[in-house]
Amino acid sequence: MSELKITDFRVIDLRFPTSREHIGSDAVNKDPDYSAAYCILETNHGLRGFGLTFTLGRGTELCVEALRYLAGFAKGRTLCSITDNFAAFSEVLTGETQFRWLGPEKGVIHLATAALLNAIWDLYARSEGKPLWKLLADMEPEQIAGAVDFRYISDALSREEAIELLRARRAGMEDRLAQLQKTGYPAYTTSAGWFGFSDEKISMLCDQALAEGWTHFKLKVGGNPPDDLRRARLMRSKIGPNRRLMMDANQKWGIEEAIVRTRELAEVNPWWMEEPTSPDDVLGHARIRREVPEVRIATGEHCQNRIMFKQFMQAEALDVCQIDSCRLAGVNENLAVILMAAKFGVPVCPHAGGVGLCEYVQHLSAFDYLRASATLENRVTEFVDHLHEHFIDPVRIRNAHYLLPEQPGYSSEIYSKTLQDYSFPDGRVWRK
Amino acid sequence: MSELKITDFRVIDLRFPTSREHIGSDAVNKDPDYSAAYCILETNHGLRGFGLTFTLGRGTELCVEALRYLAGFAKGRTLCSITDNFAAFSEVLTGETQFRWLGPEKGVIHLATAALLNAIWDLYARSEGKPLWKLLADMEPEQIAGAVDFRYISDALSREEAIELLRARRAGMEDRLAQLQKTGYPAYTTSAGWFGFSDEKISMLCDQALAEGWTHFKLKVGGNPPDDLRRARLMRSKIGPNRRLMMDANQKWGIEEAIVRTRELAEVNPWWMEEPTSPDDVLGHARIRREVPEVRIATGEHCQNRIMFKQFMQAEALDVCQIDSCRLAGVNENLAVILMAAKFGVPVCPHAGGVGLCEYVQHLSAFDYLRASATLENRVTEFVDHLHEHFIDPVRIRNAHYLLPEQPGYSSEIYSKTLQDYSFPDGRVWRK
Repeated sequence: MSELKITDFRVIDLRFPTSREHIGSDAVNKDPDYSAAYCILETNHGLRGFGLTFTLGRGTELCVEALRYLAGFAKGRTLCSITDNFAAFSEVLTGETQFRWLGPEKGVIHLATAALLNAIWDLYARSEGKPLWKLLADMEPEQIAGAVDFRYISDALSREEAIELLRARRAGMEDRLAQLQKTGYPAYTTSAGWFGFSDEKISMLCDQALAEGWTHFKLKVGGNPPDDLRRARLMRSKIGPNRRLMMDANQKWGIEEAIVRTRELAEVNPWWMEEPTSPDDVLGHARIRREVPEVRIATGEHCQNRIMFKQFMQAEALDVCQIDSCRLAGVNENLAVILMAAKFGVPVCPHAGGVGLCEYVQHLSAFDYLRASATLENRVTEFVDHLHEHFIDPVRIRNAHYLLPEQPGYSSEIYSKTLQDYSFPDGRVWRK
Repeated sequence: MSELKITDFRVIDLRFPTSREHIGSDAVNKDPDYSAAYCILETNHGLRGFGLTFTLGRGTELCVEALRYLAGFAKGRTLCSITDNFAAFSEVLTGETQFRWLGPEKGVIHLATAALLNAIWDLYARSEGKPLWKLLADMEPEQIAGAVDFRYISDALSREEAIELLRARRAGMEDRLAQLQKTGYPAYTTSAGWFGFSDEKISMLCDQALAEGWTHFKLKVGGNPPDDLRRARLMRSKIGPNRRLMMDANQKWGIEEAIVRTRELAEVNPWWMEEPTSPDDVLGHARIRREVPEVRIATGEHCQNRIMFKQFMQAEALDVCQIDSCRLAGVNENLAVILMAAKFGVPVCPHAGGVGLCEYVQHLSAFDYLRASATLENRVTEFVDHLHEHFIDPVRIRNAHYLLPEQPGYSSEIYSKTLQDYSFPDGRVWRK
């Protein structure tokens, strides 16, 4: 049989009208319509690869257009010509000599790069007949390092150090795999604490989540101080003193306000404070962390690339590293950050929710445990219960754990009926 | 007469095929087609405002599309409803609840924001019958501060500190203005040292620039070490020991390589090393600066927003602050950075070149001298001699100084014949 070759692609602007029900609302993102720039790669063997980047509605068309351009770099190439030197292919995309000005490696063009690279990894895993986490877990250290662009991060983690770390951490993988197969990877729920929810709704959703076995709960803060405190006390009273309560301010505060507000909210013993200020402010996070040592600081869903994550670690600016499977340039750059975090000893607790993010990060967390961090201590992956019904291989949660995916690929294939109904602006849902 | 109101807008994708002659080439940007997302605001009084953001060719369509969306926020508003609380309007753009996810405040959407805000400032200055620098120079401290979004930077510079600084630095403005009117603002030339130029061409262009009176010359580096050194020695020998030679690596190196290469190139006594590494790497720049104290470190043309500039200053990571009039969100965010730099005592030497950047930064430098830094020490503004013929009010250089603009506005109006000929993809130049 001839080599597997990417012969064509399709790009779709997919939007779900989630703002109609305040789903996903927080102090900053008040009306998200969970959306995706979605990419389907066609091959000469009939096998297809599916990839996406997550967006909030308006502006998805920009990612779609950028993705359409970048996908041209994959068209006509054999899969192995890409995967044999995966970092080089990633550099072709991020270094495109005219596009690069629009970043570099950030914003619209980087989100589009993520969708394409995610689609290629999906195709790669399918071609090997493995779920992505298993493809990664079976790779040699050199292969994994070969997918990472070490430019601008080798002062913090060199290729040689990465390979060394991967080699050392392989020990005990079989036991960890058995454990994941038995109980899954620990998860937390954000579904009970959206900003736009009333006290009654939070209360009801906490009861429901407790009944389902959840042990870690996230609350959106960043509103008026008395409101935040009231809601935080409510959630704490519902979940009791021993379960974990995390808070998320979604970048609402300046540095000094973040310090005051985080101290105030420390009353209810939050396990972490997430995005207390601008995601660009490494030094600001470091200062908040120093001045409020009683609360762990989390950030990452808006962290634009590995260079920023590197600095967050070098500056000891975060306690919890929240990689985003679609804001970083696909699996490749997520591997870079997971490996840096493993070296620096920072727990990776991926950001998820939206559309497709949960499907993605379960693979990354499994890889992190099996091959990079080799521990579950202080690790928990976000879960939000929206839109999974549109995926052919959706996440499976049991007793507040992600069960290991079993189907080949990166769990990113969406039903074609969904693609029709929710495509923007011509799908059924948007026409009416 | 009724109040001035923005009634409509036009957005144009404008591209110049500069890559055909290697103009603007450097170690990273090998084939730029200088381009712009260009915006024309129409009003009820016939007065128009012109604004642009600078790009390199492919991808301009993304900025155009984002700009078209954002311009909708200006349409139907009176000019003074915007300028009376200019920071609030800027926040409407940067905080758009769905678009924001694609940044925030960086990349494509931020570039588009710059074009719109620049157009509004142009209109504002025209409506007052003043060149932009004069409009700014005549403003009260409170008005200037009112155009600045202090979110996420007030830990480094509060509104009150900014007002205080502006008040204090006003002293002596008349003398400084007389000086600018007499000799202009000092400039340096980048035209002689592009990466793609042969030794012969560099030599010839140095001769020419010397004859024109230039005293500061920039050379593109980041190639093979022997080539860089040969070209650097050539330029130094041409310009002599007393004129200034600046180097620009355009982000080519990792941290450790940047340290080694900058030390090596220190042989020819460069006045600064520009963009030695990733523009996102505040801590990396700080380390290079510490480890190569003999060479001043410059960066900024790719610095995405005021929050990054804040950290560059807090971390003592740069000696020269190279604001970009179009990467930062227009005049507003440039004011924020100019004021921070004035407080931190860091010289601002704006990035220019491309298309329209020289026309823009001459106003910002004049404002900086008149009202913020109040000094010319170590200050020099980039000049590149391309594409000025397309502007109705182009820069005027005399004896290596920018002469003060005299016409009302922000010098950004482009001839309509140019808009026709160079519009992409249907203009004359692109059709053939």
